[in-house]
Parts: sequence; C-alpha cells; structure tokens
Amino acid sequence: MKNIIDKANQEGYHRIDSAQVSLVDIKYARDVLPGFSDYVIGHAGPPVAWSDMCGPMRGAVVGAIKYEGWAENDQEAEALVEAGRIKFVSNHSVGAVGPMTGIITQSMPLFEVLNETYGNYAYCTFNEGLGKVMRFGANSQEVIDRLKWIETSLAPALKEALQLSGPINLKVIIAQALAMGDEMHQRNIAASLLFARAIMKYLAQVSLRDVERARIVDFIISNEQFFLNLAMAAAKATMDPVHGIPNCTLVTAMSRNGTSFGIRVSGLGDTWFEAPPELPQGLYFPGFSAADANLDMGDSAIVECMGIGGFAMGSAPAVVRFLGVSSAHDAVKYTRDMGEITVGRSSYYVMPTLDFQGVPMGIDIRKVVETGIQPVINTGIAHKEAGVGQVGAGIVKAPMDCFVKALLAMDKVLE
Amino acid sequence: MKNIIDKANQEGYHRIDSAQVSLVDIKYARDVLPGFSDYVIGHAGPPVAWSDMCGPMRGAVVGAIKYEGWAENDQEAEALVEAGRIKFVSNHSVGAVGPMTGIITQSMPLFEVLNETYGNYAYCTFNEGLGKVMRFGANSQEVIDRLKWIETSLAPALKEALQLSGPINLKVIIAQALAMGDEMHQRNIAASLLFARAIMKYLAQVSLRDVERARIVDFIISNEQFFLNLAMAAAKATMDPVHGIPNCTLVTAMSRNGTSFGIRVSGLGDTWFEAPPELPQGLYFPGFSAADANLDMGDSAIVECMGIGGFAMGSAPAVVRFLGVSSAHDAVKYTRDMGEITVGRSSYYVMPTLDFQGVPMGIDIRKVVETGIQPVINTGIAHKEAGVGQVGAGIVKAPMDCFVKALLAMDKVLE
Repeated sequence: MKNIIDKANQEGYHRIDSAQVSLVDIKYARDVLPGFSDYVIGHAGPPVAWSDMCGPMRGAVVGAIKYEGWAENDQEAEALVEAGRIKFVSNHSVGAVGPMTGIITQSMPLFEVLNETYGNYAYCTFNEGLGKVMRFGANSQEVIDRLKWIETSLAPALKEALQLSGPINLKVIIAQALAMGDEMHQRNIAASLLFARAIMKYLAQVSLRDVERARIVDFIISNEQFFLNLAMAAAKATMDPVHGIPNCTLVTAMSRNGTSFGIRVSGLGDTWFEAPPELPQGLYFPGFSAADANLDMGDSAIVECMGIGGFAMGSAPAVVRFLGVSSAHDAVKYTRDMGEITVGRSSYYVMPTLDFQGVPMGIDIRKVVETGIQPVINTGIAHKEAGVGQVGAGIVKAPMDCFVKALLAMDKVLE
Repeated sequence: MKNIIDKANQEGYHRIDSAQVSLVDIKYARDVLPGFSDYVIGHAGPPVAWSDMCGPMRGAVVGAIKYEGWAENDQEAEALVEAGRIKFVSNHSVGAVGPMTGIITQSMPLFEVLNETYGNYAYCTFNEGLGKVMRFGANSQEVIDRLKWIETSLAPALKEALQLSGPINLKVIIAQALAMGDEMHQRNIAASLLFARAIMKYLAQVSLRDVERARIVDFIISNEQFFLNLAMAAAKATMDPVHGIPNCTLVTAMSRNGTSFGIRVSGLGDTWFEAPPELPQGLYFPGFSAADANLDMGDSAIVECMGIGGFAMGSAPAVVRFLGVSSAHDAVKYTRDMGEITVGRSSYYVMPTLDFQGVPMGIDIRKVVETGIQPVINTGIAHKEAGVGQVGAGIVKAPMDCFVKALLAMDKVLE
C-alpha cells in the first residue's frame, strides 16, 4: 500500500517539477471563467455563504457590487445579497485564484497563465497595490476607481505589450527572484522588477499619451507586490495537473475564505478538507494589534503548495523583519522543517543561501500527520471589519485537522 | 601613538558611514573634469605610460581616439600616441573612476554623484553593457557606435528624466540591493532594476520617438551591470572626504591599471603605493582560460573600500557560481575575514543573510599587515590582448606589498 502511494506521489512530484508556466495573455473574467456574468462573484477559499463570511470578505463583496454597477451604494449592495440575488463561487472551482478576499467579477481583467507542459490555463486578478485595496476588504470610491482604471487602462495596455513581447516565462522569473531574496508571497520586490524588465521595452512601444504611459509604468514598477498575483497564477497552473492522481496524497491546494481553511488532495477529488483557520503571528502596522486581525484568508497559499512562500523563507532572509520572525536563522529553520513534510526538492527553484538546494516541494498529508509539522504560510493580515484593509503581515500554520481529515478519507479510497 | 591613529581612523570611519550619496545629474567630461579637452585620455589605476600599458588598455586607448575622431583608424591612432600627442591622466586625480580600462575622454557623458554630507562630487562613465565593450579593451566600430549612441541619445534622455525625478538616492538603492543578493561589483541585477524603477516613470515622460524610447528603456533595464558604474561613483564620492585626515591609516582608494596595483591612504597624501597585480582566480567563458587573462585591472575596487563588492560577498550567495567560489559558505567566510582588517561595520549597509550585520568598512593598512589577510576584490577578467573583451570573472586579492610600503611610509609621517 505504501508503495502504491509513493509511486503516485512520485508522479505528482514529477508533474510539479516539470511544469513550464508562462504569462500568455490578459483576459476578462466574463470571457474565460465559466458562468461569470451578472450577479456572480468569485471568492477565495472553500465555498462559503454570505451569512458565514468574515468582515473583510463582506466588505469586498459590497465593493465588487458597486464596481460592477449592480448597486449604487453599500446599503443597496447588501440588500441585493440579502435578497439572494448574488451567486457566490469558489475561485478554485473555475480555475482561478485571488489573494486575501480574492473577489473576482466579470469585468475584472485576469492574468492568463499557461502550463505549457500539460496544456492547462490558470487565472488571477491584477494586484491593486498596497493600502486601501479590495483584496483586504476596503471598498471606498478610491478603491472602485482604481479597479476601473486597471480594467480600462492598465489591462489593455499590458495586453498590447504582451502581444509584442510574446509569452513571459514565469518559471525563470521565480527562480531568479529566489536568488534575489524573494519568497514570492510577502516579498515580491525582485520578481516584480524582473517582470517589469520583461515588459517595459514593449510598453514603451504601445501607443499611449505620455502622462498615461507614466502612470502605467509607475503602477507596475512601484508596486513591490505586483508579482504576487502572477506567482499565484503560476502556482495554480503548476498544481492543477497534479490533481486527480489515484492514491496520491499530495496537497494540490491550500486555501482560506477567512472563516474556514481548506485543503484539496490529489487522490481525493474535489472535496475540501476544512478546519478553523488560525490567527497569523506577525507584525502589525502602527495603531493596530492582533485584536484587529481577521483570521487567515486567501487563495495565495497555493504558492506554498509549489514550494515557495513560507517554504522558501530560508532564501529570503530580508522578509523576516516584515513578518516578525526573529532571525534569518529561523527563516532557514522553517525551510528545513518544510523539507520534512514534502516529497522532494525542486530541480529548478534553488536557494543560493542554502548552497543552491532546491525548495521543498509537494506536501504529503501522511508526513504532516506523522511528524506533526504544519505547513507554514507567509501571509498578509486583514482588519476583521469590512472597509479597513491591511493591518500587518506574518506567519500562519495550516490547521492540522485538515490533514487528519484528509488522511482518514484517503484510507477509504485507496485502490 | 596607537591612540592617535585610532582616533583618526574613527573619524575616517565616521565619514564613510555618514556619507549621503545621490545621482544628481549627467554631465560631459569636458565640462567637469579639469583639463579634459582634445588629446586627453583618463584611465583606470595609478598613472601609467603608454609603453607600460597592458593590451586591453592599449586597445581601449585606440578605440577612444577613434571615438573622438582624433584619428581615422587603429594605425593612425597608435601613431598619434607614439608621437607623444596624447596626454594620459589617472582618473582618480580628477575626481573620476571607470571600470576595467576605465577610459574617459571629453565627449563621454558621466554620472554626477553628490555626497550631500560633505558637498563633494564624483564622476563615472556609463556602463556599456556586456560582451565587446571598451572597458574590456574592445575597439571595433560596433563599440564606437554604441558609445556615440550613449553620448547622443541615452545620456540626453536620462539627463532630462533626472531633471524630472530630482536626485536619486544611491545609498538607499545599495542598501536595498544588498538585501536582494547583489554585492554591487560582479552582481548588480537588483541594484540596476531598482535604479530603473526610480527613473522609468520619468523616462516615460521625456519626449522621444517610441522606437528610441524602447531602445533606451531596454538598454537600461536589460543590462544587469548598469548599476556598477553608479556604485563606483557612489563609492568614490563616499571615500574622497575620508582622504587627507592626518595620521589616518584607512585605505581611501584601491585601483589597478592592468600593469600595477595601487592604494592610497588617508594620511599619506596623493602617493600611490604600488605592487604588481595578481591574476584573478575565477571562471572563464567557454573557449578561454587563465592563459588568456590580463592581470587585475580597473578603478572598480573603490567599491570594496566602502565595504561592498568582495567585502559583502556573504550577502550575495548567488554571485559565487559566477566567480567560481565553491559555496555560499565560502562567500560568508570572505566577508567574515574582511571584518578582521576593517575598523567598523556600516550602520546602513546591512546583510540580511548575516542576520542584518553591517558590511565590514574602512580598510586599516595596519590590520592588513598584522593579520596577513589581503583585501578581496570581485572582478571581471579582460583578455590580455587588445580588442577582445571580457573572458571571465573571479576573485583577486590586493597585493600585500602595497600595504607594507604604505605602513612604512606612515611611520615617517606620524604627527
């Protein structure tokens, strides 16, 4: 039995390691996500009803309704939801991911990432920048206006530049950025600049007014988290072909809706194995504390499934001060620990700080339960109330119960 | 006596640490370097006569004469030099630095860097990119054409962008890049992208044809060594105010002309203390070996005087594979060793990989001689013949004799 699982897991490991992921186009949600039309809202994490949604996700839902023009103000938007007019969809179920609240509606532009090895596509929204942004539950006019500008100005310009540049290889950028101190979850400064490097020459050739070009260039190049959403789409495109291997105990998705933490396992179909999320341990922006924090949230933990983010912390010593980890030594320890619960090392994503060792890759639910070591995730922290936004960043652990439940389910389905 | 020296060295250390360096303008050599007019050529390292110049420096001199139009071809150019018509000047004597051959002539645009704390300026040429370039001794028409384009298109555009952006703080960029795996001598990918980030928004607003804008954007953002020359100007601007402190035994410049390695010491005036340079130990490009290598060359070792480059190798583990160092662990050892021959740690240039310790800063000639530890320099390797270019990169040590000679001279001038 052990042998059958090990073999299945080796196939899963091979699929992660052999993925070739590139940004190929910009598409609008209505054109690529099944069923995304009026009154449909995608969200992060396992499925969740409005009545169970946390504050920031409710805030983002209200903002998205205003952004789409389905309601004029917050009250009308909430009434629309209460009347049952909105259909909520888990992003993962339509091949998409979104950070934090992860809200997606039909008019939003998405990065289209192709896994060339397996022919599948994955989608993620654009990063809005820092501060008051919808992914952290903010929904003021400023937030809506920025999203409209992303939809009507940034996205068309980037789409045109991408047609000139051709596909941009994200696997290469992720590997380079690992050598530049990014772990691609809470630190994306190098990856964002490497992406800018790949696109700027072509953006210079898109016909634009100089003032608008300057705004677009500045938005891309100044946002240190711009690449996060590309890393997420790359990870989603990498992990989807790993799903559905019989007897495979590898985790293909970890995701959180702010109310519940769920994992999906390759050999266990579309079931989410859920448990209450933990509160991230980290650093808070001035004026905020753990009392303000929402529980862990977002589809972004897909990057840890691929071996980056918290798993690659040892390669990103500068991130520790942002997350409240005590030392670079501790960051290395997290990465070493993740080696205990994964099936292999990446042959491509290597860490120069650890003498070019590959990142630990392919979380095995058996190893998590046997060792008692929980997967570690680097995460942003949202205010627990709607409309406020980000209040900090830190580290959170995937709840052990998810893995125990999945392992019990595995016992029943082994072929 | 020891007390007097220690006090002088503390003042020197303070001046290094308190420097604030910013790129403030682009200027042409003829307008800012004293005496730079027809038939004057600046070069790297201590003064050297044509008859003593190594192959690549001769190649670059010939190229520079063609670039300025003082001669039509290589033969005419060499005849001009042989006839004694060319005046050679050591860059350091006119407040400038240049990498490798370091050739500067009147028409070349220079970065103007201001040390705001002490009010002094330093200058460095533009980086030409990789491959066949004048700094490595190449002098074909392709090399000349690129230099002309830098002079007539890139420099004016960058100057205009810089007027829009205002001064760009290089100290901040250097500190950020240290957290991104650069040591700013043989690895400048992060620093170059951070500089691009600072200027791109403004470059987008300069009135240019789209095709020319794309070429300029591409030249800046694609050249992973673009920042090297800015780091050198920053280091020169940082170190110049440290020069001339009575009884101070700190090294204010290390520089090499390909024939001789020289150091200058704060309390010892303008004398260069020279010794034969060593051959770098490193990796060669395919088809080349140590038999092709010129001896160590360039003004670039000014960056090591400030604590980056070889001194900060522990913060740049990814550079080891480029330089032929065996492991990231060895890179850390180099940085630790440099701590033995310096007077302090930077309070601003910190290394996350070494738990945010500052880079070792302020080389004390006494400590070098006492410990027998030679300063380590990360360097490019030029072909020993004129016209070929770069053949590799590696590590070289400053010759011990320079430090012994300087220490003996110090004994005579102590006040």
